Amino acid sequence: MLIALLPGDGIGPEVIAETVRVLDRVTDQLRFETAPVGGAAYKAEGHPLPPATLDLAKRAKAILFGAVGDPDCDRLERHLRPEQAILGLRKELGLFANLRPATLFKELADASALRPEVAGAIDMVIIRELNGDVYFGEKGMRKTASGRREGYDIMSYDEDEVARIARVGFETARARRGKLCSVDKANVLETSQLWRDVVIEVSAEFPDIELSHMYVDNAAMQLVRNPGQFDVIVTGNLFGDILSDQASMCAGSIGMLPSASLDANQKGLYEPIHGSAPDIAGQGKANPLATILSAAMMLRYSLGLAAEADRIEAAVATALENGARTLDLGGKLTTTQMGDAVLAAL
Amino acid sequence: MLIALLPGDGIGPEVIAETVRVLDRVTDQLRFETAPVGGAAYKAEGHPLPPATLDLAKRAKAILFGAVGDPDCDRLERHLRPEQAILGLRKELGLFANLRPATLFKELADASALRPEVAGAIDMVIIRELNGDVYFGEKGMRKTASGRREGYDIMSYDEDEVARIARVGFETARARRGKLCSVDKANVLETSQLWRDVVIEVSAEFPDIELSHMYVDNAAMQLVRNPGQFDVIVTGNLFGDILSDQASMCAGSIGMLPSASLDANQKGLYEPIHGSAPDIAGQGKANPLATILSAAMMLRYSLGLAAEADRIEAAVATALENGARTLDLGGKLTTTQMGDAVLAAL
Ligand SMILES: CC(C)[C@H](C(=O)O)[C@@H](O)C(=O)O
Ligand SMILES: CC(C)[C@H](C(=O)O)[C@@H](O)C(=O)O
Repeated sequence: MLIALLPGDGIGPEVIAETVRVLDRVTDQLRFETAPVGGAAYKAEGHPLPPATLDLAKRAKAILFGAVGDPDCDRLERHLRPEQAILGLRKELGLFANLRPATLFKELADASALRPEVAGAIDMVIIRELNGDVYFGEKGMRKTASGRREGYDIMSYDEDEVARIARVGFETARARRGKLCSVDKANVLETSQLWRDVVIEVSAEFPDIELSHMYVDNAAMQLVRNPGQFDVIVTGNLFGDILSDQASMCAGSIGMLPSASLDANQKGLYEPIHGSAPDIAGQGKANPLATILSAAMMLRYSLGLAAEADRIEAAVATALENGARTLDLGGKLTTTQMGDAVLAAL
Repeated sequence: MLIALLPGDGIGPEVIAETVRVLDRVTDQLRFETAPVGGAAYKAEGHPLPPATLDLAKRAKAILFGAVGDPDCDRLERHLRPEQAILGLRKELGLFANLRPATLFKELADASALRPEVAGAIDMVIIRELNGDVYFGEKGMRKTASGRREGYDIMSYDEDEVARIARVGFETARARRGKLCSVDKANVLETSQLWRDVVIEVSAEFPDIELSHMYVDNAAMQLVRNPGQFDVIVTGNLFGDILSDQASMCAGSIGMLPSASLDANQKGLYEPIHGSAPDIAGQGKANPLATILSAAMMLRYSLGLAAEADRIEAAVATALENGARTLDLGGKLTTTQMGDAVLAAL
């Protein structure tokens, strides 16, 4: 099965390298092809998502993605910036459903800024829509009637876009504790009002799921106050961007959490939720566990290798139990040494 | 000096009543006039912001606002919902600058979900723009070319809107620790790109202030990970709605935090950041301290009575030191008893 490896910028190549070692240990069914993406691709080929990279991503059965983001590229025109690569992949491949589990490994109870009893209760999945919202509407700079510069972006969702992500939310809740919380800002936004209306309509197909609604400002509070109350959260692209990063941090180190971005046929792109961390790139300081756990999600969701996924996750837990810690977790292991610790536990 | 009292819905009337008792004790320069607002106004007069209420707000030197929000009104057309009252007041009165201090009273270190050492370091002000952004752009429901329902909202800022709130941010930072963090999503939104460009232009007027920029997803993480890093945050209406509620919760009980919404001439509307809490309304369970502290801000910012403001804030601290706690703080005092505790400390 062909896996596209897109290491990208910063610490991306380092964390991908460890992950490939782990994958090679648990299965011989994978074939890897690597292509440049993000700032690295811009520097090499003049575009953050070169045609050959997109083509590889389309051909592959799944994509393992490192990170994009490069301070050298901040002043480029928007369409040439590294971030456009990940936005382009999501859109071109129809990866509309972003799944982000947030749980605290009990071995890392000390890593959260939240009190241990609050953080310890976190066990949720955030489902973020990835193909619509203000991310992909018409946008630009224009002049107002009085000649002032104005920036604008159109936010919108149509009923089909909302219904398909809502179904992912309900299905995910059904496989867990049966609770779905839909987050919007329906008291102010018409986009959110449609969102809420459609989620309620779809809920008729899932009478066994307990549905609630929360305004995004309240959700941001509740994720701090009592994150244990959430099972599955479903929300739009922009609110999901904010809340999923917030939830990850509540659950401890950002170096620990994986994510999957799925299309309608379980093809997916898998990436750690952390970014390219240019400040520590190339120094062996990065924690590879988020990427290794993303690979486990890939085995489970896109490749039908659930047993192998379980083995990786168990090995990560064992490594942590044995005291393996990278810098972000208060330890001293290098990226490669953490990879070794997981391999040793396999 | 005429003060407009707009108690509103839910616990609004209860917390306003205690606040008036406190104000009456510290000064005899105020004259109060009361008017209905929100769901209460809709029920009495068919509109959440009746003309006489708006007129009173315009005539007054400052406005003391309780809360709006009433589940009975959730299914009304948008323009009749309680929330439209506060949005209408902000817009009609040109209250563009929302100031929300977030600090943890040291007596309440246990009230935060964050570890005491993390929460204890919080001492910031969030400045949120209130008159623009996706809140006030064109919005509505329409059909797509293929006949699907679609909700849309236009997000935008022009350079003057950004410059005036940026100046409030820089001035506020100058009066504090000299650090301003501007929060946007410039890697995706053109509205944010203009925001960032203009904030950088305005920064030339404030060479003494240390300016930084942060993406909103990262800001939501940093507010959990290390909120002590922030002095002043300036951001748009939507991101400010989310981040300021999140920051309040990091700083402890939502029942403690005040806010000011100012126009260009220091006229302001003052309100607790909590909502109408219909579930506990009319039972004497609400904590009046956020409203009492909002009144202190009113004395300081709009009425030039700084000494009286200091007295109120000191009395609140003393009451807490003496062990006064409402339910939300883990105590047993009623709303009135908490008012008594503050009066006793004056
Ligand atoms: C890099 C950026 C465009 C991206 C987003 O906003 O979606 C990132 O923050 C993410 O969450 O994957
Ligand atoms: C009630 C609502 C419209 C309002 C807002 O979103 O601005 C509230 O959440 C606030 O922050 O004051």
